[in-house]
Amino acid sequence: MRAYDVIYKKRQKEELSKKEIEFIVACYNNGDIADYQMAAFLMAIFFAGMSDDEIFYLTNAMINSGQRMDLSSLNMPSVDKHSTGGIGDGTSLIIAPVVASLGVCVPMMAGRGLGYTGGTLDKLESIPGFRTNIDKTEFLNILDLNGVAIIGQTSEIAPVDKKMYALRDVTATVESIPLICSSIMSKKIAEGTENLVLDVKIGSGSFMKSYANAKILSEKMVNIGKKFGVNTSVVISDMDTPLGNCAGNALEIKQAIEILKGTLKNDLYELSIFLSALMIYSVKKANSLQEAKILAQKQINNGNALEKFKRIVHLQGGDVKVIEEPQQLLPKAKHKLEIKSNQEGFVTAVNSNRIGIAEMLSGAGRTKKEDTIDYSAGIILYKKTNDYVKKGETLAEVLYNRSENIEEAVTIIKDAYIISKNKNGNIKLIKEINYEQRK
Amino acid sequence: MRAYDVIYKKRQKEELSKKEIEFIVACYNNGDIADYQMAAFLMAIFFAGMSDDEIFYLTNAMINSGQRMDLSSLNMPSVDKHSTGGIGDGTSLIIAPVVASLGVCVPMMAGRGLGYTGGTLDKLESIPGFRTNIDKTEFLNILDLNGVAIIGQTSEIAPVDKKMYALRDVTATVESIPLICSSIMSKKIAEGTENLVLDVKIGSGSFMKSYANAKILSEKMVNIGKKFGVNTSVVISDMDTPLGNCAGNALEIKQAIEILKGTLKNDLYELSIFLSALMIYSVKKANSLQEAKILAQKQINNGNALEKFKRIVHLQGGDVKVIEEPQQLLPKAKHKLEIKSNQEGFVTAVNSNRIGIAEMLSGAGRTKKEDTIDYSAGIILYKKTNDYVKKGETLAEVLYNRSENIEEAVTIIKDAYIISKNKNGNIKLIKEINYEQRK
Repeated sequence: MRAYDVIYKKRQKEELSKKEIEFIVACYNNGDIADYQMAAFLMAIFFAGMSDDEIFYLTNAMINSGQRMDLSSLNMPSVDKHSTGGIGDGTSLIIAPVVASLGVCVPMMAGRGLGYTGGTLDKLESIPGFRTNIDKTEFLNILDLNGVAIIGQTSEIAPVDKKMYALRDVTATVESIPLICSSIMSKKIAEGTENLVLDVKIGSGSFMKSYANAKILSEKMVNIGKKFGVNTSVVISDMDTPLGNCAGNALEIKQAIEILKGTLKNDLYELSIFLSALMIYSVKKANSLQEAKILAQKQINNGNALEKFKRIVHLQGGDVKVIEEPQQLLPKAKHKLEIKSNQEGFVTAVNSNRIGIAEMLSGAGRTKKEDTIDYSAGIILYKKTNDYVKKGETLAEVLYNRSENIEEAVTIIKDAYIISKNKNGNIKLIKEINYEQRK
Repeated sequence: MRAYDVIYKKRQKEELSKKEIEFIVACYNNGDIADYQMAAFLMAIFFAGMSDDEIFYLTNAMINSGQRMDLSSLNMPSVDKHSTGGIGDGTSLIIAPVVASLGVCVPMMAGRGLGYTGGTLDKLESIPGFRTNIDKTEFLNILDLNGVAIIGQTSEIAPVDKKMYALRDVTATVESIPLICSSIMSKKIAEGTENLVLDVKIGSGSFMKSYANAKILSEKMVNIGKKFGVNTSVVISDMDTPLGNCAGNALEIKQAIEILKGTLKNDLYELSIFLSALMIYSVKKANSLQEAKILAQKQINNGNALEKFKRIVHLQGGDVKVIEEPQQLLPKAKHKLEIKSNQEGFVTAVNSNRIGIAEMLSGAGRTKKEDTIDYSAGIILYKKTNDYVKKGETLAEVLYNRSENIEEAVTIIKDAYIISKNKNGNIKLIKEINYEQRK
């Protein structure tokens, strides 16, 4: 078999066999196929697509580039969550402790941000001492002790995906449903979780712009999960508006602590509760989604979720005093600039794509892999969609240390806000749920 | 500007600007863009296509990766021929001396074969001593002395095309009309010829399987030629059947000598006369195609074309005694095997794709760039389409030194012949001509 023939076949829009897909993935993983052949293959997939069988074979081949972990020795039901990513999306920080506080294993392998925002790992690393670079043995030890860990992908988990993702990122082949599906699912299946909740974002701040594509991606992922025995549920949620009241690494940690303390109830709280409930229902700790929601809220109100978060920080080397005094102990930006409204009315939109760009310009994101993140930088959103604002009132604030791009950031934030006489009636945070109901 | 954005734009099927195309070609040429980004870009072009403007910009950028030669100091009209390639296609060997013998400059930069067959350069190198690796200065000197030279592409001629072609060859992106068009035309325009005749092959032994695509390619190339002031004519000719009576390097040299001596008149002779005539008409050495045809035949009959070929061989270091005694002085294969007919009737097809594979298996072609060619190996076709054959009569013969693949070659040749009761009425060597007629 030759790589050329497999690329050619896909280019001709023919269906590849299990053997052909296994061949190309295994050869790419061990270096027998060069980046340029893989790049052509990925672009051919972008245009020609893949059948459900092909996606299954691809996911399987990617899992087999490493190991599939076995969490059965932990004697706990397990569930993880994955989001396709958006601005201000700090749900993992809240969900992991809420669900784990119910005696559920949450083996969370998270990612770093690329493009606009920091990822979950970047956010956690803004806590002094917090380590995410944890190997398999330590991961399993922490899970055994605390039921939850939030770490970077270990070297055993779908290593070829890392290589393929890096290549997709520079060859404009990220936005392909078969490639997104196999990338996400190979990692999550290899991680060993029995249940999975996926949060597919749709809107200006996500890479999925079309609702139809988000639906297709959801269905493909549920289908793949089923084939590997992982009970997979999907939520399609809004990313036209940023989630929560801030976008930035330390800022989002501070916000998560407030939500876990029960002192902040915004849309980030709402989505976190919903996703937690779906996870709780998945592991059968509740008999309905409604019951699961009440349970999730209870874990916040009784302090158990916060306690669990404290243990996560402690076991991963972070300074737990951050939880009591986030304002004092998290990195703080030297400068800030307020963006004021020049008219009166209702905020009808806060374009999350623009807020994401401004977040990056503040220093909180990366444009290249090598860029260092400014943990303290970011945007605070004082007004969100359907808030009423007076002329001269503060809409948002940029926090920063490096001033090079701040003027541009301010302009972009101004442009992100649309203010008019009437409220926006089309706001819907949770657009669709796809999960298997029990009788 | 970033390579990513240009790839992304093409992937979105948008039209690229002159600047974007110049950027990506120049950066690839100087190594600032990696093979993997170029591979993704080429596959995106394969699927998304290119507008006429884009093809023009691409061709121009490829020419500008090197120099455009100026042949005006030679004080002769100039014309070159290019064929998209096929089995037994040795027209260059006949055309170049026929046309040059009329005081016309034929600055022929030819290629090597890849895949099935040897290329023109490989065929010529089967003549002891013959050199094709000739630099620009020597090329111009030979043209000044003899009006014609058949050499490999010099380093000044569209160097980026060489790099791009090598990449296309391993990433299944050869069969793309914009890429074929820009590759051929950039080389031919850079070479400095004022007139160009293109022979686009169609049929089982060519990479163009569809007549519609061959027509589109023809039109695009004529159009590009016009934009660069190169008078371009196109012939679409048959490649369902191999050309001539043999396929192999030394074998085709021997056959070309016979045709130039006037002792062999087969379909290769016929096509060569036709293409020569189009070239002669292009440089205004005749007032009609018919007059040009008679002139081309005359140059064979009066021995001038053969004399010109002798000078080509001499000036490029080859042994001219080959022309008198090809049988003695050209490399000879040690072994041969005859393929006999097991039925009686008319040959209704000789599948040129199969003959090409058999030629490669005999040792006359390359499967990898690094493979060495066996100049003496090849196939002799004793029977061609519409010949009558008796049971037990010899259809073809394989000449070889390496016996590993000969059994397979014999089977493939047997399969290439189709014999039936009736003649094939659909044979047409020259299918279409596209040239600018003078009043």
